[in-house]
Formats: sequence, C-alpha cells, structure tokens
Amino acid sequence: MTHPYRLMAPGPVPLAPEVLKALSEPMIHHRTPEFDQILSRVLKALPDVFQTHQRVFVQSCTGSGGMESALVNCLSHNDEIAVVVSGKFGERWAKMADAYGLIVHSLNVDWGHAVDIRQFEAFLNAHPRVRAVLTQACETSTATLHPVREMSEITRQIVPEALVMVDAITALGATPLSMDEWKLDVVIAGSQKAFMIPTGLSLISLSQRAWQAAQSARLPRFYLDLRKEQTSNQKGETFFSSNVALIKALDRVLPRLTGANRLGQIARCDGLATMTRKMAERYLGLATYSKSPSPSVTALVVPSQIDGTLVRKNLEAKYNVTVMDGQDHLKGKILRIGHLGYITDDDAVQTLVLLGKTLCDLNYNIPLDDLGALEREGRDLLKATPMP
Amino acid sequence: MTHPYRLMAPGPVPLAPEVLKALSEPMIHHRTPEFDQILSRVLKALPDVFQTHQRVFVQSCTGSGGMESALVNCLSHNDEIAVVVSGKFGERWAKMADAYGLIVHSLNVDWGHAVDIRQFEAFLNAHPRVRAVLTQACETSTATLHPVREMSEITRQIVPEALVMVDAITALGATPLSMDEWKLDVVIAGSQKAFMIPTGLSLISLSQRAWQAAQSARLPRFYLDLRKEQTSNQKGETFFSSNVALIKALDRVLPRLTGANRLGQIARCDGLATMTRKMAERYLGLATYSKSPSPSVTALVVPSQIDGTLVRKNLEAKYNVTVMDGQDHLKGKILRIGHLGYITDDDAVQTLVLLGKTLCDLNYNIPLDDLGALEREGRDLLKATPMP
Repeated sequence: MTHPYRLMAPGPVPLAPEVLKALSEPMIHHRTPEFDQILSRVLKALPDVFQTHQRVFVQSCTGSGGMESALVNCLSHNDEIAVVVSGKFGERWAKMADAYGLIVHSLNVDWGHAVDIRQFEAFLNAHPRVRAVLTQACETSTATLHPVREMSEITRQIVPEALVMVDAITALGATPLSMDEWKLDVVIAGSQKAFMIPTGLSLISLSQRAWQAAQSARLPRFYLDLRKEQTSNQKGETFFSSNVALIKALDRVLPRLTGANRLGQIARCDGLATMTRKMAERYLGLATYSKSPSPSVTALVVPSQIDGTLVRKNLEAKYNVTVMDGQDHLKGKILRIGHLGYITDDDAVQTLVLLGKTLCDLNYNIPLDDLGALEREGRDLLKATPMP
Repeated sequence: MTHPYRLMAPGPVPLAPEVLKALSEPMIHHRTPEFDQILSRVLKALPDVFQTHQRVFVQSCTGSGGMESALVNCLSHNDEIAVVVSGKFGERWAKMADAYGLIVHSLNVDWGHAVDIRQFEAFLNAHPRVRAVLTQACETSTATLHPVREMSEITRQIVPEALVMVDAITALGATPLSMDEWKLDVVIAGSQKAFMIPTGLSLISLSQRAWQAAQSARLPRFYLDLRKEQTSNQKGETFFSSNVALIKALDRVLPRLTGANRLGQIARCDGLATMTRKMAERYLGLATYSKSPSPSVTALVVPSQIDGTLVRKNLEAKYNVTVMDGQDHLKGKILRIGHLGYITDDDAVQTLVLLGKTLCDLNYNIPLDDLGALEREGRDLLKATPMP
C-alpha cells in the first residue's frame, strides 16, 4: 500500500487546490490590466488578515527578508533594541540586528516557555532607551505562542516610544492577532504558512508610528525600502518586478482567509492543534513540549528511549508523511507537526495514526486497537472546526 | 477570432511546459531527500550557464535583489565605484549604490548606444581609485548590448584591483557570456528571463577575487549574505527557507540551458532577434532603436505620427499580445519585444503580423500582402535556429 504524500510541517504547507491551478496557468505580464486587477484585489484584501487599517506590502523574499525589512525600514545604526530570544527565530532576529549595527538586548526565555510578563516588564525597565521591541508571535522552533497583546501593552507603558515589531510568520492567519487593536507597529507574515502558497513572499505592515520612524531611519536600504513600494502601490504597481505567480496564487486563496472565513480559518488551526495534542497524549503517550502551545504548530516530546530523528525519517520513508525534527539541543527530542495550510481531516488524523505505526516499527508498543480509536475520535473532534 | 495569449516581453516570459507542470505539483518540504536531490542538481548545473568554475547561488528575490547582493557582499561604505548608466537599470544600480553610501562615478552613455571603449578607458583613467565597475550586459530599457568582454579587459588594465560586476539579468542564457574566460567578478541573472520560470529568484556567482572582497567587505548584510549561503550550500541546504517551487521548476528547465543545448539556446535567441529586426524593417517599416541591438530583446522605433503606447495597448487588447512600451523619454517612442523564454516560431512571427495589423488599425498603412510575405519569410528564417 502506497500512502499519499502528506506535508505536515510548519511551512511550507500543502497548497490549496486553487493555488495549484493558478500556478499551472500560463505566465502573464505584470503590466497588464489582468495583473493590475489581481494586485489591486490582493492589496485591498490583505489588511483584513492583519486586522489593520494600514497598507500591507508584498515583498519578494522569504520571511527572514521580511524580518530584515522591519529593521532596515524603521531603525538606525546604534539604536538600542530589545529582542525576545526563545528559540531559533529569536536568535536569528538578534543576529540580524547585530549585523546591522543595532545594539541588541536579548531577553532569553527558556525554550518551550512563553514570555513571562513580569520578567518582560523588568527587562524593559532595565533598558529604557530601546527604540524597538522584537518578538515572535509563535516561535516555530519550539511551537510556542507568546502573549503578544500583553507584551504590547506593557511596552507602551514602560517604553512608550519603542516600536513593537512582531514576527507573525507562523501565526498570522492561524492564531488570533489584531494589529491595530493590539497596537502592534510592525507585523510580518510569510507566504508558505497560513497563506497556503509557496515560499517566496513576505507580507509586512507598518503602523503610523512605524511609518514616521521610516522617514528618519538611517539604516541603508533599497531592495527592501517600503517607501518606494508605497509610492508604486499607490500607482497600482510594485516597485520591483512583480512576483506574478505568487501574487496571483495569493489572490485566489485570500477568500479563504478573509471576511467571514477569517475566524473559521483560525478556529480550524486551533481544532487541528487541539485534536493533535489530545490524541497524541491519549493514544500515543506523547506529551506536548511547549508550556504555551501554538495553534499553528505542535511539538510532541519523543520518548527518551527513541531517537526522534529516526522517527521523522522512518515516518517519511515508509509512510510518506513529512513532519519536522527539533533543532539544536532539541534535535531528536521533539517532533513538530504543522497545522497550517490546506490540511484535510484525513491528513491530520492519518499523520497521528502513521506516527503511531512508526513508533510500533521502532518497538515502542502501541496497541493497534488504540490507533483505531484514535482515528475515530480524531475525526470526530475535527467535525467542530471544518475547513472554511 | 480569439487569439492565444502571447507574452513577448523581455521578462517575465512564457514558461516552458515542464515548468508549468512542476508548478502544478503538490508542495514538498525542503528538508526531504527529494528536494535534496533537486537542489543538488540545480547547484551542479548552474555554473555551466554562467561558464564558471565557481559556485552559483540562488537567492529568493528579484533581479534587483541580486544587484543589491553584489554590492553588499563585496563593498564597504565610502568605496568609490564606477557605474555605466545607459538606461533605467544602470540608473537603478547607481541609486542603489548611493543608498548604501558608496561613492558613485557614473559613465553616462546615450540611451540606445553601447559603451564606447575609448570613452570607457578615459573614464576609468579619471577614477583610478574605484573598487568596482558595474555594468549591465544588456540594458533592458533600450535593448542594448554592451561590449562586456572588452570592458572587463580594459578594467583589468587600468584599475586591476577593481571588481567587474555584471548585471546579466536579461543576457545570461540568451547571449554569449563566459564568466571565467571574460574574467568577470560578479555575474547576476534572474529567473524570469532566459531561465523560463516565474519571477522570484536571483542567481549570482562570485569570482575568487570577489570572494576575497566579501571577507573584508563591511556593508551590513544578512538576508543577502552569500557567506551564510555558501556554508549552507556545502551542506546541501539553503540558509533561508528554500524557494521550493521555483527551484524545482529550475531543475526541470535547466537541461534546456546547459550542456549540448546551451549554445542552441543562445542561437535561438539570436535567431528570433534577427528575424524580428529584419521582418520589422522590411515589411513594417520599423527600424531598430539600438545601435548595438541585443539578441535577448529588440526595441523597434514607432513612426513619429503614431503613439507607441496606444500601439502597445491595442496590440494587447485586440490581439492578446503583450510587448513593452519604452520608459521615461522613450515612452510611446519604442516598442520592446522579448526573445527570451519559451517562444515558438508561431509566437515570434505572429507578434509581428499582429503588430502590423495594429498599425493598420491606426491608419498606418501596411499592405496585407506584405504581412503574408512577412509570415512566410519569418517562419523560413527561424528554421535555422529551432528551439533546443
């Protein structure tokens, strides 16, 4: 029996059918009435996903390019900044800021833990001159959700001039996040996550305060300069060659993520995450790693007698399911299962069943009856949150 | 009669059928044995297109991102550089360099003219401290090919320490260009040109000299830092999330551009360009704008009594053919027809026939018999350079 390929990583994700169709259509030029309409629809729809009245910009780069865009557009050499470091992506942002000559104060948070608001408060009190506070909404490497709304409030109280910059790459469209209401100054998203299209676009929005900062920011920038992009967008164009294929794909998929479907999509991710955590614990004996699990990705603790890297490999080689290993000191210790993208009930439930079989193959005994129960119960749980 | 869509711009271009197929396949993860093989094949094949023994890097950005990558990887604040400005893309590179605090000496070349080697020599003699010389191989805005090989030789003689940086975005894969033999230090290409895949990847290669410069260069960089990418590539990975869809598409199409097909592809572009120029002059009365026409794109002069912008619009609206207008002072004065990408004989010949009809529609009289002759003769000319 061959198994269909199941991509269950926290990005890239399975593409929506309308995305695959869009990608298979002949190329069109970006200076055509057809593309003008596509770009116009996309730029009009995106703010709803961000829950903002500001413009959202589309840049041809990965999410890391978007993180760099936040820095170079709003900051200047020798600016002090505070960076939450709770995993690989926090580390990356801190290194990136350092490469640009920013003075980085890192708040190191134990991997798998959410930011503690009292610690965060003390940290900001100790660094009153920071111009920006950077955090992941979801730290993908540990599948942990941070209390971004509370962090934003505290930042406004303690360092009111500081910009709140949120890497929401693995969060936006999949977890509750309201840029304007939460008073976030920069929010960054990535195409290969909740947006269900391939890697290659970063989406970014700036508050009015961040735009003001952009006017006086002195870090050098050209490719990522949002001032140029804003001027072009106002004329209905992109400044650089438009990423026609991905913008067209985004146009097709945005109805799934906006309007009446927006909350349904967020509920769907939460439903997938909840089912995954419950069934893994109940039937596979696998605990959830994070103390603050994200609805977009779940990290399961691999039993100490088993090598998680081997589980991941075997699950892929024998059962055609891709999940992610842990990184650095978590390598072989956790397995990360994504809840983003076009994931069917079958994908989600079968991933756990096949993970169970893989564990059995490695002599970690799980009764086959239990896998049957997992399948029935998992499917039942997902009925409450159908794909919008 | 409805006409099939013909994308005849100098990028984006019609995609090869195997590219459309690759894009329509389900997403895979970049940390899988399947993608490992794809990336490995791509990185192994690309140097042949560049005619180099150096590595070629794939970055998720447009061609302009590649131009920025060249600067930030090899140069430092306050470095003097020489920039050939012969159209829109030369202007862009000069502005970009200025934004990064480089001291820019521009050699302004009349639009539509190739660099004059004696002037170039005098220019370099006047600026002996330049650390790099930047030029387009083909300036897309004027469809003009520069004598890059001779320019490289002269640069080595006059300012031997300076790096020769070539924006070959609309040239590589379509015109003769040998990075190692011509002693070019940085060569940049773009995915949506001769590579026949969508916009979104920039390809770049550095000579040993450029790599040395990269070790001491002090411009800030992270997203575009090729040192990180080199380390990851050596492990068979990309540093940032792999652009899975486009790298997979590139893998499929590279056999058309490498090995025995490489020169055939270059001959094909030359054949399309030659046919276009000859037929336009003979049967449509349209002269070629550039004094040094490129095999990758042809700019035709629009008769002064006709508005080229209107011709472009009507050709697209009525006959479903996209060609490009001129830019800035050339707007409405020239039409640019691309010869890159998956262009069939029919596409190339019908573009001219339909351009003739559009001119007739605008009361610029062309005998219908002549369009018949154009069609026959055009097809006949193209037989010598079939698509590889």
